[in-house]
Amino acid sequence: MVNYPNGKKGIYKTDKTSASRRGMTLEKEINMTNAYYLDEGLANIHKKPTPITIVKVDYPARSAAKITEAYFQIPSTTDYNGIYRGKYIDFEAKESASKTSFPLESIHDHQISHLRDITKHGGIGFLIIRFTQKQVTYYVRATDLFDFLEKEKRKSIPLSWFEKKGYVIPESYVKPVDYLKIVDQLYIESEDK
Amino acid sequence: MVNYPNGKKGIYKTDKTSASRRGMTLEKEINMTNAYYLDEGLANIHKKPTPITIVKVDYPARSAAKITEAYFQIPSTTDYNGIYRGKYIDFEAKESASKTSFPLESIHDHQISHLRDITKHGGIGFLIIRFTQKQVTYYVRATDLFDFLEKEKRKSIPLSWFEKKGYVIPESYVKPVDYLKIVDQLYIESEDK
Repeated sequence: MVNYPNGKKGIYKTDKTSASRRGMTLEKEINMTNAYYLDEGLANIHKKPTPITIVKVDYPARSAAKITEAYFQIPSTTDYNGIYRGKYIDFEAKESASKTSFPLESIHDHQISHLRDITKHGGIGFLIIRFTQKQVTYYVRATDLFDFLEKEKRKSIPLSWFEKKGYVIPESYVKPVDYLKIVDQLYIESEDK
Repeated sequence: MVNYPNGKKGIYKTDKTSASRRGMTLEKEINMTNAYYLDEGLANIHKKPTPITIVKVDYPARSAAKITEAYFQIPSTTDYNGIYRGKYIDFEAKESASKTSFPLESIHDHQISHLRDITKHGGIGFLIIRFTQKQVTYYVRATDLFDFLEKEKRKSIPLSWFEKKGYVIPESYVKPVDYLKIVDQLYIESEDK
């Protein structure tokens, strides 16, 4: 959780270019970014643990309880939520290996329902979609996703839609997926005016 | 998740008194209450899955992936969070078997740090503490807990403190732990005036 490159851990010290992180998964980069936000007192946003059904647990003498049978559950919410400047933040993050589109089957129906509900309650809901081959990561407003789903019957969202409706998320050495920059643009700066 | 008594499921139909739920754990009752809040469009608040470190997964042919070795992690946040009327909600829930006090060791230090951070960011943070023998459940503001920890060096919080500083959470058939009533009193109603 705390392997972010703020100098406390030396892991990334020798590699200065962001290209050196190109093998890193989106999840890991978001966790690094969230750890930075947390550490700097900017926001408190976490990935939820993977939901699991535990069937069997062993309690070996003098050792920690050991789970010996468990199964993955389908998540009923998005993976990430938290608070930023008093606002409730909620999002799902996915990678697409395709060069031309993002397959909608990657997102469960109840995750979309969840985002609808969050939005209704006044939360800031969005998706983070990375096209791994293009090395570009988009912020997509939940409301724009709902629009797409309403109008289109397609099973995937074309890259051209992301280029039009999405916001490219800036990356930096300490904040590999600096999505709060986009939240600032969309919600905070406009309020300040 | 959806075993709440709104008539869709018949489980509780024969037992009309809340006393019939007395064997139920606090967690289960909070989950029922949250399911009711969600279903009625009042709030979107969930329990986070238990954090687990997965060591080994088997992929039997034609079956779901089976986790065969995993261990419980110490949680780094509280168990529950979500959104209510645009506000970020965050809390931890614990039962005390003692008649006279609540042992502070039940709450991890980083859960308290988490609540401090949440409060700093403008979220509504609290504890739900049930004295099982007394059958009373208190809502405790995170800020009141911080005050106690600052002033007292005790390892447990006496019941008398809860009687003075806590708010008794009302219970109803469909909302066994109706904690949002207290949130309304403390944050919403005072805003409306």
